[in-house]
Amino acid sequence: MAATADSVRNGVDSTQLYGTLDAIKGDPSIAKFQFRAQNRWIDGSHNRTTIRDFYAANQEDTSRIEDFVLDAGEPAILLGTDTGPNPAEYLLHALAACLTTSLVYVAAARGVHLTEVESTLEGDMDVQGALGLSDDFRNGFEHIRVSFRVKGDAPEEKLREVVARAQQRSAVFDMVRNGVPVTVEAATA
Amino acid sequence: MAATADSVRNGVDSTQLYGTLDAIKGDPSIAKFQFRAQNRWIDGSHNRTTIRDFYAANQEDTSRIEDFVLDAGEPAILLGTDTGPNPAEYLLHALAACLTTSLVYVAAARGVHLTEVESTLEGDMDVQGALGLSDDFRNGFEHIRVSFRVKGDAPEEKLREVVARAQQRSAVFDMVRNGVPVTVEAATA
Repeated sequence: MAATADSVRNGVDSTQLYGTLDAIKGDPSIAKFQFRAQNRWIDGSHNRTTIRDFYAANQEDTSRIEDFVLDAGEPAILLGTDTGPNPAEYLLHALAACLTTSLVYVAAARGVHLTEVESTLEGDMDVQGALGLSDDFRNGFEHIRVSFRVKGDAPEEKLREVVARAQQRSAVFDMVRNGVPVTVEAATA
Repeated sequence: MAATADSVRNGVDSTQLYGTLDAIKGDPSIAKFQFRAQNRWIDGSHNRTTIRDFYAANQEDTSRIEDFVLDAGEPAILLGTDTGPNPAEYLLHALAACLTTSLVYVAAARGVHLTEVESTLEGDMDVQGALGLSDDFRNGFEHIRVSFRVKGDAPEEKLREVVARAQQRSAVFDMVRNGVPVTVEAATA
């Protein structure tokens, strides 16, 4: 179906959204995705990731017309020159972006028009862990706090339901909260 | 101590690195960091994170002279317009960047001169989970594979040790593999 003005809520075409869900119900094999990133060290804490291709709907997706390029770095206190956000900050961004997108899509599906979604994230870390100085501290954040401010045309109770449902469906929230098996291999020749 | 040509390896000043470690040993309170991200929804799957301030060494760090701004999005097949990498891709980037930085710092501390560090990451996801179509699939990646290519002036065995140690010390690797407690609160008024 073509989009109609009425089917687009929060910038999401709910007709297309339900069409996608129906297509997957008809052929679940199209739901298998693979996302990728290629990273290259530049110097010191400066490294760069290139993102473009991915696999979806039983084929390589070629719809993206250019690469996304992301630079990482560290601030001076962590021996860098601020060539980009640091990796832990990128993780906070990934979490914020995923919760927000989930929230916006859930709201669109439920007929809620949003006017504002903002969030602030904080992650606490004692760097004695990552620096190898003490086993009393983990390497990563001990805790992450996410504070949302959400406004829209629905009653508070429904907005809270949307926030709760977004957490239940967010890919990055699942990964950050529950962890993911990671395999690392290296070629050194 | 001032940096000397000899103390800088892989763009990391190992004199400064050991100075930081000594300073933390002398006063562990300076090891408490807090990183932050502020996100704002733009439209549809497009949202934007601003990163700048953080807390470290018992004070607000004000050394960064400008904000980092990161745009997220989704490809067409996930109802977006490619306004940026998607959140799960940002998570892969965070993981690649952190493993690479850890690897470079460990190599610097151990006197290994690196000439090349590249990595490719792949994450497999069945979107029936995140789309709420099936409880048989989690929302996030089922598995992440990281493939490194590392070259330097050390024997293969020592390079492999550096890769292994980088995993033991990486903040984002710890978080992605083991998970982090996340608290989400929302103001809807």
